[in-house]
Amino acid sequence: MHILSRLMRPTRLVHAHCDIPCGVYDPEQARIEAESCYRILEKFHASSDDHFRQRCVVVKEARADETKHHIDVLWHDYFKPEHLEQYPDLHDVCWRASKAASTVKQSTDLDAARELLAAIDRIDEMWKGTGGLATTRLNGRPS
Amino acid sequence: MHILSRLMRPTRLVHAHCDIPCGVYDPEQARIEAESCYRILEKFHASSDDHFRQRCVVVKEARADETKHHIDVLWHDYFKPEHLEQYPDLHDVCWRASKAASTVKQSTDLDAARELLAAIDRIDEMWKGTGGLATTRLNGRPS
Amino acid sequence: MHILSRLMRPTRLVHAHCDIPCGVYDPEQARIEAESCYRILEKFHASSDDHFRQRCVVVKEARADETKHHIDVLWHDYFKPEHLEQYPDLHDVCWRASKAASTVKQSTDLDAARELLAAIDRIDEMWKGTGGLATTRLNGRPS
Amino acid sequence: MHILSRLMRPTRLVHAHCDIPCGVYDPEQARIEAESCYRILEKFHASSDDHFRQRCVVVKEARADETKHHIDVLWHDYFKPEHLEQYPDLHDVCWRASKAASTVKQSTDLDAARELLAAIDRIDEMWKGTGGLATTRLNGRPS
Amino acid sequence: MHILSRLMRPTRLVHAHCDIPCGVYDPEQARIEAESCYRILEKFHASSDDHFRQRCVVVKEARADETKHHIDVLWHDYFKPEHLEQYPDLHDVCWRASKAASTVKQSTDLDAARELLAAIDRIDEMWKGTGGLATTRLNGRPS
Amino acid sequence: MHILSRLMRPTRLVHAHCDIPCGVYDPEQARIEAESCYRILEKFHASSDDHFRQRCVVVKEARADETKHHIDVLWHDYFKPEHLEQYPDLHDVCWRASKAASTVKQSTDLDAARELLAAIDRIDEMWKGTGGLATTRLNGRPS
Repeated sequence: MHILSRLMRPTRLVHAHCDIPCGVYDPEQARIEAESCYRILEKFHASSDDHFRQRCVVVKEARADETKHHIDVLWHDYFKPEHLEQYPDLHDVCWRASKAASTVKQSTDLDAARELLAAIDRIDEMWKGTGGLATTRLNGRPS
Repeated sequence: MHILSRLMRPTRLVHAHCDIPCGVYDPEQARIEAESCYRILEKFHASSDDHFRQRCVVVKEARADETKHHIDVLWHDYFKPEHLEQYPDLHDVCWRASKAASTVKQSTDLDAARELLAAIDRIDEMWKGTGGLATTRLNGRPS
Repeated sequence: MHILSRLMRPTRLVHAHCDIPCGVYDPEQARIEAESCYRILEKFHASSDDHFRQRCVVVKEARADETKHHIDVLWHDYFKPEHLEQYPDLHDVCWRASKAASTVKQSTDLDAARELLAAIDRIDEMWKGTGGLATTRLNGRPS
Repeated sequence: MHILSRLMRPTRLVHAHCDIPCGVYDPEQARIEAESCYRILEKFHASSDDHFRQRCVVVKEARADETKHHIDVLWHDYFKPEHLEQYPDLHDVCWRASKAASTVKQSTDLDAARELLAAIDRIDEMWKGTGGLATTRLNGRPS
Repeated sequence: MHILSRLMRPTRLVHAHCDIPCGVYDPEQARIEAESCYRILEKFHASSDDHFRQRCVVVKEARADETKHHIDVLWHDYFKPEHLEQYPDLHDVCWRASKAASTVKQSTDLDAARELLAAIDRIDEMWKGTGGLATTRLNGRPS
Repeated sequence: MHILSRLMRPTRLVHAHCDIPCGVYDPEQARIEAESCYRILEKFHASSDDHFRQRCVVVKEARADETKHHIDVLWHDYFKPEHLEQYPDLHDVCWRASKAASTVKQSTDLDAARELLAAIDRIDEMWKGTGGLATTRLNGRPS
């Protein structure tokens, strides 16, 4: 079967976030959104105003969704087959990070937001370990 | 470390596409968008009109992106740890499907769209094999 | 009046969802979103958790909006003048379906979600009656 | 059949663009986007620069889509059953307007953009004829 | 430094909302969304229904965000350096209008919505004062 | 006039990107998108493939638009009246940055992308100079 046999072979040529691929990726995009979730949860717990707390629910849902999107992009666009050999738990780490972002939507627990941030830190390590810092940003990360 | 230890434990309670979780999922959402890509490529090749062909490039980019989104949802929201035990290649199949959608953006080759459809068929089998047809739709799929 | 006279003549050549037109349409897209609304309402009523119920309101609004979008696409892109001759109540059925989706946003009544699903079933019948199953999907609907 | 009988009765209480319903509607939203399409087409024809013309294709697609969205909102949210009695061709006018917007995507013909504008003018007349100017804006339209 | 020196020179050639630039702009786009916020707040205060009031919070957030977007477009796409000479408080007026839209998100106070509308009226005056009515719409504003 | 007088007073309490305000901002969000534009332009010029180059036009338009969005957020949500006193050219710098992003859409010139990056660097300096690094991120920027 032509199609199936092609499907069975390792994917060869695909690799990108805007899918040009432009080659620019940084877990900072996911982290900044996740930090937003964390701060919203802090403020949610510090407030007793109904209108404010309802807004927190609305906006946390959106920001956690954005976090998931950026995790997805790293997973299926930045990471390539050779990275999977280097980090055999690559899929699992990204999967858990996505599920941690879902939990942030579903929960008001600050620990959920901390877990999400820790999960993104894991992805960040793999991004650095595969040369992401040197190869994907124009001039590295600003201090 | 409290956070890290929680992260190391299997994710327990997260599971959903709208992340309520509403529990409704169907690979048909990805497949219909991928069929749209296929038809656009057919028409692209059948046409010699510049304006039409440029529109095809624009719309194919959008439809393939929508396909990726629906694959992502199945991967991180529908599929759960017990499904991964049942289908150890779950991550790999979804990853290739995403990358196949990227290729559809990057290419005008009809084979790329066929591969994407075949990859979604694989996901569909896993969805059925994990009871998706019986548990995620209100009345199954319409004939 | 050139413009007005052209406007008065039957619309001739327009016909599509991504407006290429790619020619791929399926009421399943609307139905899956509407089923999501139904399940969310079920869970809304089964819960007494404020945070969860507020999230249901947020997500139901989004899913019902997506349902409306897919109904709109069927109405103005899939259905053509000859279909209107075959189904003189075409406009009315689609109009009511859209309004039923608005009611799902506005209400927490499960009957509202059932009406929306019934309305989409009516559109599905017209889609089949006009050959949609045979002509718009690559290989029909999967079982 | 409870559901079907409810569906058969005239829809009673649904009516809105943001679906609150907030009650604010104005065909100006559709017209401004359609004027944008018109001007883009003028510039498209006046230019021989490939990059510019390709951008026109991209942006025209988006603006015409936005036009369709605003027409949809007027059709299924602003207009109500009593308006249909007053304007029996209400559905047809809105349907043709949507299809005219599709044609603007598909064509580079300025006449297509003129037809779209004329179709929106027809909707504008119905909006005024049903009291839209007096009831939907806070202080009418600014001069 | 080539880049910096270019940056220091007055911006010369950039000017547009869809950034073609198509040249079509109208503060009506911002005002209609802001009127929607106003009406939602009126209905919010007139209601004691929890579900309805929560929907108001969700939709107000979205409509105020859309208002901000249209204000941004006027600020950085419609207004040009020569307009800034004519209206030295141009930046300040637009900035306050954006911040007024943020306040509408954050507050349930009708005065916040009135301030936003007044701020948009100020932008409208500058738009007219710089010839916007004559140059950006195809046939001026409809009565 | 109550409304006008309130409008004339300095805006007091508004300040945020998700407008909670969550308080998390970082010019990195704008810069990463702008770097994407830069790389796309590099690849555009290195390629002679029509399909690829047209995709570059499509995606550059989207990424530059995202850049503008993030600049807008910094301008009207992060920066507050006291920052304007510290940086009297705050409005001008942000305005030029937005217009530089428009130019990146309109041009294929790599210098345009360099200018945009330089403009974001200016905003970054103001963000740091107003304490952004210390106050808006959870743990500063990662190295």
